[in-house]
Amino acid sequence: MYLEKINQANDIKKIKPEELKPLAREIRRFLVKKVSKTGGHLASNLGAVELTMALHLSLTLPKDKIVWDVGHQSYVHKILTGRKQDFDNLRQYGGLSGFPKRRESEYDAFNTGHSSTSISAALGMAKAAELKGDDKSTIVAVIGDGSLTGGLAFEALNNASKLRRNLIIILNDNNMSISENVGGMSTYLSGLRAAKTYNDIKRGVVKTFQKIPVLGEKLVQDIREIKSSIKQLIVPGMLFENMGITYLGPIDGHNIFDMCRIIKEAKNIDHTVVIHVCTKKGKGYRPAEENPSLFHGVGPFDPKTGKVLKDKSVPDYTDIFSETIVEEAEKNNKIVAITAAMSDGTGLCPFKKKFPDRFFDVGIAEGHAATFAAGLATAGLKPFVAVYSSFLQRAYDEIMEDVCIQNLPVTFCIDRAGLVGNDGETHHGSFDLSYLNTIPNMNVFAPKNAAELKAAIKFAVDFNAPLAIRYPRGQAFTGLEEFNEPITFGKSEILYLEKGILFLAAGSMVKTADEVRNLLKGNGYNVSLINARFVKPIDEETLRRVVDNHKYVVTFEENHVNTGYGMSVLRFLNNIGSKAKVINIGLPNSYVEQGSTERLIKECGLDKGSIFEKLIKELR
Amino acid sequence: MYLEKINQANDIKKIKPEELKPLAREIRRFLVKKVSKTGGHLASNLGAVELTMALHLSLTLPKDKIVWDVGHQSYVHKILTGRKQDFDNLRQYGGLSGFPKRRESEYDAFNTGHSSTSISAALGMAKAAELKGDDKSTIVAVIGDGSLTGGLAFEALNNASKLRRNLIIILNDNNMSISENVGGMSTYLSGLRAAKTYNDIKRGVVKTFQKIPVLGEKLVQDIREIKSSIKQLIVPGMLFENMGITYLGPIDGHNIFDMCRIIKEAKNIDHTVVIHVCTKKGKGYRPAEENPSLFHGVGPFDPKTGKVLKDKSVPDYTDIFSETIVEEAEKNNKIVAITAAMSDGTGLCPFKKKFPDRFFDVGIAEGHAATFAAGLATAGLKPFVAVYSSFLQRAYDEIMEDVCIQNLPVTFCIDRAGLVGNDGETHHGSFDLSYLNTIPNMNVFAPKNAAELKAAIKFAVDFNAPLAIRYPRGQAFTGLEEFNEPITFGKSEILYLEKGILFLAAGSMVKTADEVRNLLKGNGYNVSLINARFVKPIDEETLRRVVDNHKYVVTFEENHVNTGYGMSVLRFLNNIGSKAKVINIGLPNSYVEQGSTERLIKECGLDKGSIFEKLIKELR
Repeated sequence: MYLEKINQANDIKKIKPEELKPLAREIRRFLVKKVSKTGGHLASNLGAVELTMALHLSLTLPKDKIVWDVGHQSYVHKILTGRKQDFDNLRQYGGLSGFPKRRESEYDAFNTGHSSTSISAALGMAKAAELKGDDKSTIVAVIGDGSLTGGLAFEALNNASKLRRNLIIILNDNNMSISENVGGMSTYLSGLRAAKTYNDIKRGVVKTFQKIPVLGEKLVQDIREIKSSIKQLIVPGMLFENMGITYLGPIDGHNIFDMCRIIKEAKNIDHTVVIHVCTKKGKGYRPAEENPSLFHGVGPFDPKTGKVLKDKSVPDYTDIFSETIVEEAEKNNKIVAITAAMSDGTGLCPFKKKFPDRFFDVGIAEGHAATFAAGLATAGLKPFVAVYSSFLQRAYDEIMEDVCIQNLPVTFCIDRAGLVGNDGETHHGSFDLSYLNTIPNMNVFAPKNAAELKAAIKFAVDFNAPLAIRYPRGQAFTGLEEFNEPITFGKSEILYLEKGILFLAAGSMVKTADEVRNLLKGNGYNVSLINARFVKPIDEETLRRVVDNHKYVVTFEENHVNTGYGMSVLRFLNNIGSKAKVINIGLPNSYVEQGSTERLIKECGLDKGSIFEKLIKELR
Repeated sequence: MYLEKINQANDIKKIKPEELKPLAREIRRFLVKKVSKTGGHLASNLGAVELTMALHLSLTLPKDKIVWDVGHQSYVHKILTGRKQDFDNLRQYGGLSGFPKRRESEYDAFNTGHSSTSISAALGMAKAAELKGDDKSTIVAVIGDGSLTGGLAFEALNNASKLRRNLIIILNDNNMSISENVGGMSTYLSGLRAAKTYNDIKRGVVKTFQKIPVLGEKLVQDIREIKSSIKQLIVPGMLFENMGITYLGPIDGHNIFDMCRIIKEAKNIDHTVVIHVCTKKGKGYRPAEENPSLFHGVGPFDPKTGKVLKDKSVPDYTDIFSETIVEEAEKNNKIVAITAAMSDGTGLCPFKKKFPDRFFDVGIAEGHAATFAAGLATAGLKPFVAVYSSFLQRAYDEIMEDVCIQNLPVTFCIDRAGLVGNDGETHHGSFDLSYLNTIPNMNVFAPKNAAELKAAIKFAVDFNAPLAIRYPRGQAFTGLEEFNEPITFGKSEILYLEKGILFLAAGSMVKTADEVRNLLKGNGYNVSLINARFVKPIDEETLRRVVDNHKYVVTFEENHVNTGYGMSVLRFLNNIGSKAKVINIGLPNSYVEQGSTERLIKECGLDKGSIFEKLIKELR
């Protein structure tokens, strides 16, 4: 009933102080109810309810700006800026985005989706304000502790120290990124957190100094022992302070009044200031508190029990990878596995459990993952880097320079390749064939079904060069298993060989191509079907051998059509002077929005019906 | 004469202690003599003479490993590992590489070229050693203070803190990356450096504590005042220590014995340790000491005077950019300029001098440069990011996600696009058309000559979307200036329109295409020539209009042919059912080695003679 009063930005300022707690409870109920139907990022939003309220109480939007790192914690911000009625369509085609979108609202200052960008973007806004002589507006970046493990955040912090104007960085510390947090930064933040609160620390300093026995030479020896406590207590946030950034905190991220006070204090600082806010992921909804990883990004669930409704009777491609990599690692102790903060999402938890020493979660640091893997490979190990397609973009240069120039046997297991559905444009894995195509020495494999993914991973174990295996999100296709030609490097697999039309399909599109083939067969056409398998290099030998019996060559891929597999085929056929007409089926050269994968496939013309119609028109 | 005794790895261990200083002097003379003829990275190698000697005295190669960050400071290492006789061919085609290369020597542990990779790679080697139960070998990463501004180095440090085995990171601090050093990290290191030496610091701690007047409440107030000195003195390197990494130093990087002692100490630490070594860039050669930026990467010079022999009577493309961006910025105060540690190399020094508030050197942080620019653009400014082509690869994801999804008017001025010559495979800017081609909303312009670069920059000022302008290294081409059609978005420029063969050329290859055209004309062929200008999107309208009068379409680009401009043309012509035969001229899909640009162009078949012969063969 307090939520009813929130209909546009800044409405929250009309809520009485004593009504804020009940409002927070209502917002949590609203989030659980809505997300239980649409699916979405729940735990991080439940954790950020009071933080978001405090920001909206302390700022005046849209004059002031909030940049949400990654952006999946922006639901409460959307509720408080006049968008609560749109939550029934959250993450649906044409509906409310699960991430900030400038075209959706003037209150969304910057589009996000990938990690660790917020400080860079906010610093740009702050610098622009400084140049314009605007010293009134407040610019805030809200970044999680997990996102701080990304190098981009560090590059931005390094630069933020030079700012001669206010910029507020809220470090939303829930001691857990998507998987668990890793590394020195995490240990460091834990130390700060242990110090409890801002005021406690001031008391702590005194106590620590009272322990110092005598001055003089002996002190130097004592310092070593008490160093770790001193360094936290004298100047908490020294890591930030060392870089010239003021540190305030840590502070309870579920106490609205404390946060408003500290934000007010921070606004008066004439340079960059970090406010360290401690929150609990999933706060206020027991199933999410108990299993924040499950409720990080969750499908529809029963709000009463927290039971997820998704039918998991059929395994995902992730499951296939998950079990196969463990099987192979049992046989071969050179296999090591690397994830960038996605041990759960990429299926590496069983590997981690079974081979803790051979498992590396490097944090949200895809670039490091690639170069680290290259280092491991030079020492004779066999690294598998499991990563989501769109996040691997962060490692483009490291793949190019550190893995492929040296032609090192690093295998990238690329999950979520192709369209991923409701997370939308920042998360579709629709560019990997394109950018990997540009890299010499890189080899790319796309399995047609579950069995072929398994076979590809086994193939990778003994393959002595860079290899990417890309597979889509969701249920593994188990059809066409009667076709199980052993994998040979650079060779495609012929499923049907006829004369007339030649279908060349990569990965997930083999199934579609097979269906379209059946439709065309029903209309009296003869259609060959080849499973590309290797998208790079393409199988020139087979193509050269079979193409002359075909008037049409149709390529199929779940990747942007202008720079992917089809282009390689077209280029080769042009080079050998083939007279066949080439038709490339794939995604357009534009960003694809959110929606169910099925819907998006249709919108992009990649469903069997659309392809069939397009081809029939061409053939007639 | 001591250098004569150094003929293979570990020979330096036979040199008597008192002979080491004279040997260092000989090495410096050798470096100046050789590099004055071939050109190369001089200042950083002169600065690293004693450091490299100390490492080779302390380690046993190849059992132990040294990873050289960026790698341009590896000359002394090459001298000490049996390669001194190869320095006459340094950086020449087929000769000694200016960077570590595993295929060149078993003593080169990891190929480098791009910045900030060494800790990631060395950590991989250290982890591999740990897994193999090898606790004997020593693994060392040598990284400059400039490279520490790159996010990748931070990602690696964050992970290095977890290592339960020795790993030595040598921080080679010369207080200057390629341009000057920037940001909080730099300020921090300056503070450490001011503390002078390891032993001084121990004394300093005592003195500082002796200043503390009384224990108790008053102390808390005093702490604030003396905080900045305390934090350096109690635990120098606290930024590292906070992350769980032991810090030793700072130490004089020109004192071999001190360094050997501290390396010995570091080898006994059972986790990651940073040794902070202070060196002087250009040490021992006055012209390089006085102008380390000039002698960072230098062409042939007179070793006596330090005078560079290169003729600069004709301006570079960099000069054109340099003067034009200043002219435009005088007229439009929304223009801001960003460089990633390359203000000199990209020509931004005059801009920096004239508009210090509108100039940003972000350090070696291309990802941040892109996202920061996106932030500036959302606030209505007009950012120009000046960057070398191969280094922009680091920002692939940020361009894709932060600039192009939001369609923000950020202009990337891409210098060193195409082959760059002697720096070799890590530095060629031969992939930009390829990877930018994969990004929706990105627009790419390649000017044919100096005047067109100037016009393109002016065009960019008012262009309201992402734009990349790519231009090559070296002297600006000033021919074909009679063709100066005003720039229109998406439009190419027709130079000659005939019937028969259609040449479509991008950027630097317009000159070559014009020359090949003259050769073909001399052989009786009719050849049209179109200057592509926009490589993305290609000018479909003009192509559609003129193509039917041509039997052959030949594309020209100084980029890898399989994924660049020619592919876009081929795809379009295939889509419209053109019957013309398409021939794509460009670089092969493989890494291109070092050598003079002229030589490499020939090796890749991109010189007018090779192209002419290829075409004549095809036409006959």
